[in-house]
Amino acid sequence: MPYTIGLDYGTNSARALVADCADGREIGVAVFDYPSGRQGVVLDPANHLLARQNPADYLLALEHATRAALADAARNEAAFSPAQVVGIGMDGTGSSPLPVDAHNRPLALDPRFAANPNALCWLWKDHTSIPQAEALTQTARRLRPQYLAKIGGVYSSEWFWAKIWRCLVTDPEVFAAAHSWVELADFIPAVLAGADAPEKIVRGVCTAGHKAMYAEEWGGLPDEEFLAALDPRLAPLRDRLYTRAHDASATAGALCPEWAARLGLPAGIPIAIGEMDVHYGAIGCGVAEGTLVKVIGTSTCDCAVVSAQKTVADIPGICGIVHGAILPGYFGIEAGQSAVGDIFKWFVEAVLGGGTGGTGGGGGGDALHGKLTAEAAALRPGQSGLLALDWNNGNRTILVNQSLSGLLLGQTLYTSAAEIYRALIEATAFGARAIIGRLREYGVPVERIVCSGGIAEKNPLLMQIYADVTGCEIRVSRSAQSCALGAAIGAAVLAGAHPDFQTAQAAMTGLKPALYKPVPAAQAVYEKLYALYLALHDAFGGVTRSADLSALMRELLAIKAAA
Amino acid sequence: MPYTIGLDYGTNSARALVADCADGREIGVAVFDYPSGRQGVVLDPANHLLARQNPADYLLALEHATRAALADAARNEAAFSPAQVVGIGMDGTGSSPLPVDAHNRPLALDPRFAANPNALCWLWKDHTSIPQAEALTQTARRLRPQYLAKIGGVYSSEWFWAKIWRCLVTDPEVFAAAHSWVELADFIPAVLAGADAPEKIVRGVCTAGHKAMYAEEWGGLPDEEFLAALDPRLAPLRDRLYTRAHDASATAGALCPEWAARLGLPAGIPIAIGEMDVHYGAIGCGVAEGTLVKVIGTSTCDCAVVSAQKTVADIPGICGIVHGAILPGYFGIEAGQSAVGDIFKWFVEAVLGGGTGGTGGGGGGDALHGKLTAEAAALRPGQSGLLALDWNNGNRTILVNQSLSGLLLGQTLYTSAAEIYRALIEATAFGARAIIGRLREYGVPVERIVCSGGIAEKNPLLMQIYADVTGCEIRVSRSAQSCALGAAIGAAVLAGAHPDFQTAQAAMTGLKPALYKPVPAAQAVYEKLYALYLALHDAFGGVTRSADLSALMRELLAIKAAA
Repeated sequence: MPYTIGLDYGTNSARALVADCADGREIGVAVFDYPSGRQGVVLDPANHLLARQNPADYLLALEHATRAALADAARNEAAFSPAQVVGIGMDGTGSSPLPVDAHNRPLALDPRFAANPNALCWLWKDHTSIPQAEALTQTARRLRPQYLAKIGGVYSSEWFWAKIWRCLVTDPEVFAAAHSWVELADFIPAVLAGADAPEKIVRGVCTAGHKAMYAEEWGGLPDEEFLAALDPRLAPLRDRLYTRAHDASATAGALCPEWAARLGLPAGIPIAIGEMDVHYGAIGCGVAEGTLVKVIGTSTCDCAVVSAQKTVADIPGICGIVHGAILPGYFGIEAGQSAVGDIFKWFVEAVLGGGTGGTGGGGGGDALHGKLTAEAAALRPGQSGLLALDWNNGNRTILVNQSLSGLLLGQTLYTSAAEIYRALIEATAFGARAIIGRLREYGVPVERIVCSGGIAEKNPLLMQIYADVTGCEIRVSRSAQSCALGAAIGAAVLAGAHPDFQTAQAAMTGLKPALYKPVPAAQAVYEKLYALYLALHDAFGGVTRSADLSALMRELLAIKAAA
Repeated sequence: MPYTIGLDYGTNSARALVADCADGREIGVAVFDYPSGRQGVVLDPANHLLARQNPADYLLALEHATRAALADAARNEAAFSPAQVVGIGMDGTGSSPLPVDAHNRPLALDPRFAANPNALCWLWKDHTSIPQAEALTQTARRLRPQYLAKIGGVYSSEWFWAKIWRCLVTDPEVFAAAHSWVELADFIPAVLAGADAPEKIVRGVCTAGHKAMYAEEWGGLPDEEFLAALDPRLAPLRDRLYTRAHDASATAGALCPEWAARLGLPAGIPIAIGEMDVHYGAIGCGVAEGTLVKVIGTSTCDCAVVSAQKTVADIPGICGIVHGAILPGYFGIEAGQSAVGDIFKWFVEAVLGGGTGGTGGGGGGDALHGKLTAEAAALRPGQSGLLALDWNNGNRTILVNQSLSGLLLGQTLYTSAAEIYRALIEATAFGARAIIGRLREYGVPVERIVCSGGIAEKNPLLMQIYADVTGCEIRVSRSAQSCALGAAIGAAVLAGAHPDFQTAQAAMTGLKPALYKPVPAAQAVYEKLYALYLALHDAFGGVTRSADLSALMRELLAIKAAA
C-alpha cells in the first residue's frame, strides 16, 4: 500500500505527517516552529488586535517539516521510501488571507514591503478589522440579507473581506500592489502546484464558503454592486479573485518539479484541495452524518455534515453551512466556542497565578491544572452550587456576539478554587450543548460525538462532564494529528488509494478505546442546571428582554443541597 | 475628672476599657479570649449551623479583663486609682440569648446540663433555628403583620424567639428548666447589679426592640395569643420574661458589693443599660441625626438615629427601627451587610489559597491582601470591566434573603486577581449605597459617614471607593474600641460626669484626621456602574420578574473602554 503526506499549518507551527494509506498509521511526523514574531505570530505592541504571519515562514516550514517527516518515516519503517508517496494534502488556519502579486508571490517577499505588517498574512485571529466587519454586516443586512443567512447573521472581523477592506482603508499602497488575495489553505497547494499566477490557483470551497460569502446560488463571491457599496475601490478586486471554488473531490494540481526536488518527492503526484484545519480534522476524526466532531483546544470548533441530497435550512447563529465544505457530497457545517481551554488557562494563570504568568513558553500551570482537576473530580454534579457562562472571549455560535463576557454565580464564603474550576468546565459543556440543541432544532442529526485535541486526550473529567451534559456518548479520535491525517486522507482519495472518502476514513481513522457514556443521575442534575444556564444565556445574550431570574439563586442552592 | 469602664463582649473575646470622662482618652485596655470552644465559639462538627458560647467564659472575662484594664490604666497614668471609676457600661453581641434559672443562674452552670450545648448561650451567628424563623415569619405575616413591619418584613434565625422556640422543639428538657431567657447584653449588667432573679433584670430596649419584637405600641413583647399560635408551650414564657425594656437613660442597677470586690471597684457605682455592640459603637463614633455610622468588619453594621420627635415610617427591608435604641430620645435604626471583610477573606484564602487556608488562627493572607490592594489601587474606576454582587453570605438589608449568593460578571481572558479583588470591594460599596438610598428614600437623613472597625482603619482604598460610590464624605472614628468607648460614655452620662449623651460624645469621641472626599470623575463612573449593579440586584433579588439585562455586558465593556 502507498503513503500520503498531510500538512497542517497551525497558529504557531506547521507539522507534516506521513500516513500509511492502508491503515492510517502515522509512520513519520515532524513539527516546524515558525521563526518570525512571537511563537510565529507577528504582533504590534501598540495594537493588541493585530496578528500576522510571515509567508516566508510558510515556505520554510513546507520544506523543513516535509523533509523531516520523510526522514522520520524512513527511520521508523525500514521499507519506506519517498517514492511510495502518492499524494500530498494540506490544511491551514482560516480565514488567513495574504496579498500576492500577479505572479502569485506574496507581497511580503517584495523588498518594498519587507517591514510592512499589512503585506504579511492576516492571521485568523487578527481583529484589526472590527469596524469593517460591523459595516459589512450592516450593509449586507440592508442589501444582501441572503449572504448573512448562511453565516449565522453576522460577518466577523476574522474573515476575508473585512481584512482586505481594512487593508484598503489603512494601507492603500499594499492594497493597490496586491494583484489578488489568497487564503493560506489555498496558497500552499498552489505553491506546490507551481501556480505562477493567482488565476491558476485552485481555490477550496471551505474558506470560500465559510469566510468569503461564496455560494453557487448567487454566482460565487459577493457581486460587484455589493462590494462597491462597501467601497468602490473594492469592486474591481472581485475579477482578480476567483469565480469557482472546489470541494475535496477536485485536485489543486500536481506537484511541480521544482518543489518535488525541494521536498524529495516524486513530481506529478496529486495535491489535494486545501481545507481549513478543523475541516480536514473532522475527516481525520471520521466525521459522517450523525457524528459531531469537536476539536477542543484553546477554543473549540464543531464540525458536522449533512448529505447534499437533503435540504438544509439556514441556521440562525451557526456561522457556516457550505455545500461541499469538509466532505464532498455534503453540506459542511461549522460552529464553535470562542474560548474553552483558554478559560481554564485564564483561571489558573491570570487569577490563581499558576504557571509562568502567561508570558509564553507553553503549558505553564500544568501542576495546578492537575491538582484542580483532581479536586473537581471529587465533586458531585451540582455540589458546588455554582453556575458560569463560557463567554470570557465572547460567544461565537448562536449569539455571535464578541461584546459578551464571563459570569460566575452562586459563590458563598466557602466556595473553593476547584469548585470554580469545575463550574468553568461545566459552563463550556453547557455552551457545547446549546450548539448541539441548535443543530438538532434545524434538522442536523447529532447522535454521537468524536473529540480531538489536547484537552480531549488529557482530561477524562471534562469528557465525562461533556457526556453527562450533552447526553451523548463521546469518543476520542485515535490520532493526535487529526487535521494532518485528514489532509493525508484527502490526498489518498485523490491518488486513488481509496475509491472515496468513506472508504478512506474507514481504513485510515480510528477511535481510542475510552468510551464516555452519560451517567443518568448526573444527567438529571445537569438537566436542571442547563435550564438555569439557558436562563442566564438568554437574559445576558439578549434573546429576551424580560427575564425572570428572581428564583435562580434559590434554585441553585436547592440543587446544591440535594447534591 | 472621673473615669468610667466600658466592656465589649465580642464573638471571640471580651475587652475592657478605662476611659477618661474629660476627653475620652483610653488610659487602660485589656482583652480576654474566651477559653471555650474554637476561638470562644462552641461548635458541632455534625451541624455547621450551631454556634454557642459558654456563660462561664463571660464571668471569667468580666473579672480578668476588668482587672487587667485597671492595672493597665495604673501603669499608664500614675495618678489613676480605681476609686476614680464612677460608672461601668457593657455591650455585647446580639441576639445572643441564654437560659437562666429562677435565681438568674445560667443553666449551663448547672451540672445537670454541663455537656449540653442547648444550655449555653445561643450566639448571634447560630443558625440552627432557620425552620423556626421561617415559620414565625409566616405566622406573623398572617396574624401580626405589624410585628414584621418594624424589622424589615422577615424574622431572622439569628434572633431571640426563633432560638428559644428551637430549644423548645429540640430540647424540651432545657426549655422546661429555663425559668427565663436573657440576652448577653442584659445578663452582664444584671450580674454586676447582683440581680438574683430574672425579674430583677433591667432589660435594654436595643435587643428587645430589634430582636424580640418588643414595642410599646403593642404592649411590649408579642402577645400570648401570637406565641401560642407558634407553639402553645411558648406562651407561658412571656410572663417570665419582661414587660418593660429601657433606653440608655435608665440604669441597669448599682455595682453590688460582691462584684465590686471581685473587680476592685467602688460598690454602688451605676451600671449602664446593656446595648448591642454596634449600638454603643455608634455612640462611640459620635452618631447623631445625619451621621451614618458603619462598623466595617467581617460583616457591616449600619446605625443611624432620628429624633423621636419626628415620625419615622416603617422602612421595607431595614431590619430594625426602635424607639430608644442606640441614643435615648431617638429612633435607633440598624441595617447591615451580611459579608464584607468575609468576602475579601474568602477570595484571598479559599480561592487564591493565601494565608493559613482558613483553619483559624487569625489574619492569614495579610501579605496577599496587601499585594492585591496595592494592585487594585492602581486601577481606575470601571477599568476592570467587572461587576459583582456582595451576596456571598446572603443579603441582610433591603432584600432580607439568605438564599442569595455571589455573582461576578465581565471576566475576559485577561481579568486579573487584583481586578476581581477591586470588583469585590466595589460590590460591597454598592451594597452600602443601596442601604443609604433606602434610608434616604424613607426620610432618614444621611449627610456624612463615620466608619469604625479594622478594615476602615487599615484600607484607605476601600474608604476612598466607598466615598466615590456613596458620594458622601467619610471619616474614621478616632477610637479603635468604639463599642467599649460607647459603653463607657453610657456609664459617664449615667454617673453624671456629663449632663447628656450629646455633651458626652462631644467630649469623649473624635475622628482621625484622614478625610475621604468623593472624587467627581470617579463618582461619574460609579454612577453608571451602580445603575448596572441595581439591575442585577433587582433581577436576582426578585425585585423584578421582568429584567432587561440584554445590554448589560456591552455597557460594562463600554465603561471599561472609556476608562
